[in-house]
Amino acid sequence: MPKRLLLNCDMGESFGSWNMGLDDQVMPLVDMANVACGFHASDPVTMTRTVLLAKHAGARIGAHPSYPDLVGFGRRSMHCHPQEVVAMVQYQTGALAGIAQAQGMVLSYVKPHGALYNDMMKDHSILRAVLEGVTRYDASLPLMLMATADNTEVERIAEEFGATLLFEAFADRAYDAQGFLVPRRVEGSVYHDEARIIDQSLRLAREGVVTTLDGTEVALQADTLCVHGDNEQSVNAVRHIREALDQYYAAQG
Amino acid sequence: MPKRLLLNCDMGESFGSWNMGLDDQVMPLVDMANVACGFHASDPVTMTRTVLLAKHAGARIGAHPSYPDLVGFGRRSMHCHPQEVVAMVQYQTGALAGIAQAQGMVLSYVKPHGALYNDMMKDHSILRAVLEGVTRYDASLPLMLMATADNTEVERIAEEFGATLLFEAFADRAYDAQGFLVPRRVEGSVYHDEARIIDQSLRLAREGVVTTLDGTEVALQADTLCVHGDNEQSVNAVRHIREALDQYYAAQG
Amino acid sequence: MPKRLLLNCDMGESFGSWNMGLDDQVMPLVDMANVACGFHASDPVTMTRTVLLAKHAGARIGAHPSYPDLVGFGRRSMHCHPQEVVAMVQYQTGALAGIAQAQGMVLSYVKPHGALYNDMMKDHSILRAVLEGVTRYDASLPLMLMATADNTEVERIAEEFGATLLFEAFADRAYDAQGFLVPRRVEGSVYHDEARIIDQSLRLAREGVVTTLDGTEVALQADTLCVHGDNEQSVNAVRHIREALDQYYAAQG
Amino acid sequence: MPKRLLLNCDMGESFGSWNMGLDDQVMPLVDMANVACGFHASDPVTMTRTVLLAKHAGARIGAHPSYPDLVGFGRRSMHCHPQEVVAMVQYQTGALAGIAQAQGMVLSYVKPHGALYNDMMKDHSILRAVLEGVTRYDASLPLMLMATADNTEVERIAEEFGATLLFEAFADRAYDAQGFLVPRRVEGSVYHDEARIIDQSLRLAREGVVTTLDGTEVALQADTLCVHGDNEQSVNAVRHIREALDQYYAAQG
Repeated sequence: MPKRLLLNCDMGESFGSWNMGLDDQVMPLVDMANVACGFHASDPVTMTRTVLLAKHAGARIGAHPSYPDLVGFGRRSMHCHPQEVVAMVQYQTGALAGIAQAQGMVLSYVKPHGALYNDMMKDHSILRAVLEGVTRYDASLPLMLMATADNTEVERIAEEFGATLLFEAFADRAYDAQGFLVPRRVEGSVYHDEARIIDQSLRLAREGVVTTLDGTEVALQADTLCVHGDNEQSVNAVRHIREALDQYYAAQG
Repeated sequence: MPKRLLLNCDMGESFGSWNMGLDDQVMPLVDMANVACGFHASDPVTMTRTVLLAKHAGARIGAHPSYPDLVGFGRRSMHCHPQEVVAMVQYQTGALAGIAQAQGMVLSYVKPHGALYNDMMKDHSILRAVLEGVTRYDASLPLMLMATADNTEVERIAEEFGATLLFEAFADRAYDAQGFLVPRRVEGSVYHDEARIIDQSLRLAREGVVTTLDGTEVALQADTLCVHGDNEQSVNAVRHIREALDQYYAAQG
Repeated sequence: MPKRLLLNCDMGESFGSWNMGLDDQVMPLVDMANVACGFHASDPVTMTRTVLLAKHAGARIGAHPSYPDLVGFGRRSMHCHPQEVVAMVQYQTGALAGIAQAQGMVLSYVKPHGALYNDMMKDHSILRAVLEGVTRYDASLPLMLMATADNTEVERIAEEFGATLLFEAFADRAYDAQGFLVPRRVEGSVYHDEARIIDQSLRLAREGVVTTLDGTEVALQADTLCVHGDNEQSVNAVRHIREALDQYYAAQG
Repeated sequence: MPKRLLLNCDMGESFGSWNMGLDDQVMPLVDMANVACGFHASDPVTMTRTVLLAKHAGARIGAHPSYPDLVGFGRRSMHCHPQEVVAMVQYQTGALAGIAQAQGMVLSYVKPHGALYNDMMKDHSILRAVLEGVTRYDASLPLMLMATADNTEVERIAEEFGATLLFEAFADRAYDAQGFLVPRRVEGSVYHDEARIIDQSLRLAREGVVTTLDGTEVALQADTLCVHGDNEQSVNAVRHIREALDQYYAAQG
């Protein structure tokens, strides 16, 4: 029996008096909650609330560390020294682990957020810094990153650190032939049609394959599918992806 | 053989490009480093450096959480809800624990900083919030607070939480008859004479007693003595306290 | 013809990626926009957008400075030195004036936010600090504060600084016999019934009087009425207050 | 008689309880103080103190805006949208202008700090954003930037905005043949020899020429020379540059 494709979702991205995301609705639908750690969103009280929400829903939690940039929501790349990245990953991961430990929860993985995630995928010195940050904190804690058609280079670097990786794919984004996401600025790069989104999810679960924007196919070995709980529409999409996957796996016995 | 009086000192209070404190010089002289956690001072890189300094010097480390107030160095009281205090203590303690774990270190205690420390000593709802924060994070992690002539009320509250306490006294501050610190604004409340400082340290170690500002005596059961590494003069005082205590304990066999 | 009662409303309290308030809907209904300055909410881009919104709607803008507390939305009292208050008022007022000047707008007043507003009303040392902050920046810039039954003490202090005051009343809050707001924790202190809210607004406009929670009357000389644009319901209330006041003043000729 | 070469120096870069720079000593020696505005350093109280120091010394003040990055001291490039740069320049410039106005001072120029300065010199979209920020705030407020051998491109862009420019050169840095600074990582790029520093200052004042690292000469039309007040040694260098320039200009009559 093949591994089940898990759903992961960014959570706990409210900040102080400001709300973001329909966490209450989406938490019961996903397997893994990427919990903001206070650098791009969230604060100690919001983190506590998010951890408890995950606990009650039975979802695993992962640290979702970011560059220190609340105003930019962690989406602005910052030119940090690798040792700054190492330390900021450990600080945020530890902070969430502290909040979680107080609620009887443990962290299951680390997934960098926003610009830090993008920089890690593009720049091996940042990837190495994130890997050093995670593995020196806890060598058994997996790092979640983006699945592409060829993960060998990333896997080779992870091996240097003895790191475990989790690969994620996206249900609502168009891919190119190398298994990279088509940039958002390109027409058609983000799927809004739910049938299309569910189809991509199911093919990833069943065959480990996506159809690219230009109609060819590319193999993508993903452990988890990234979904979004920003608004009613995206929560509905998650609900239907959840149902489709559950049905498929039930049929598999 | 009586318990040895340990020296504790606030450390790692530099921030980004700004330096504060002669940590390199004072770390080898103390037993316990109260490490700033990023809310009143420090940042992930500085915390890493401070933890390593403590590790190499063989000092224990404790979390030194604060209200979120970098500009005010955590010295401005903030009217926070107790659940905010619970969560901010856990966040900061976890953040330091994360940095420490990556360097093979564990936390030995928590000592609140500045206004949070003062508020905790004056307001039982804040004390309870700090105790809840610490004990739900790790019931075996001691909380350090101020020794007074009568600690029974504080001990009774700590018992509600199953908390362990560490009491600290001050080498360079004048006490009143209830074992409280004489406020800084009062003439003579801060000792600058090193002989006076060493004498108060030794009497606390030997007899558990201090002479108050008006010349009477008050018993003070302290586990640890708070010292300062701000400048050359205070580091010299710490060096001489260290020598005096070492000599005394060596003579005790 | 008596002075018209102007409507003022807190605006521009979004922050980075987080939205708050229905500014677009409420701006055309009010006369004065209290614009957040980055310490409890907002950021330079949001401030620019808010100033432009006010400009297009023909509303005056005022600085809405706060204690530095994004996580607590400026609602947590901070024990600041008066000189810190002076400087933080000038910093925030200047920052908004800079953004405004770039859009061809000028500031019409200053209204402190949240805990700073409450502290100013309770503690004359904070009131003096705010007055010093405002008048040394621009002696002709009015300070907005809360109307009570007896404003003489506040007016006397303002005179020391040569300050101009604007007094505000609240449409949706119950008053006591001294013209102070009944605390929110008291049953019935916040009005949700729109007829009650419009009635209080009209009586303030016509007679300068409110009926207190216990049924007596108290005179309240207000220049402006504080309204809220948080949600659809409160925007509707503002719309109906606006209509009621416009109708009343039209009838006055 | 040629224009005198003015000395400019970064000032007011303390933050809360942390001190940086010998502002008291260097302020009387320079003509222009680049005052930090709270984004890479400083806070409202420090800004007030810095403005007063400049006022008493008779120095002009300029805004020294930065990316929002206290931990990184504004030295980490952040990938901001140009409209974010426009707004952050206006916010910081206005904030300092507000503090200054309260002390009877006005701003004389704007000089971006650290990574924002470097990005502006390398990327015309950032230069345009800074120019838009400054000129829409006050078209008569000059922008200070780096003199190179050929300023025509920069001057052409400034003209689009109707902006006035001030060009600065560096006394203690080696130049290349295009009039760019030799990167710090290159051996010999930073001068420590005071005679060398004074010589470069005098040649810039007298001839508008520097000798490059490889011994050729390059013309550099500079309005002002950037000096540093970080420590005793750099303050001494400033003192000797000041004396050398004063002597030279006195001899010119």
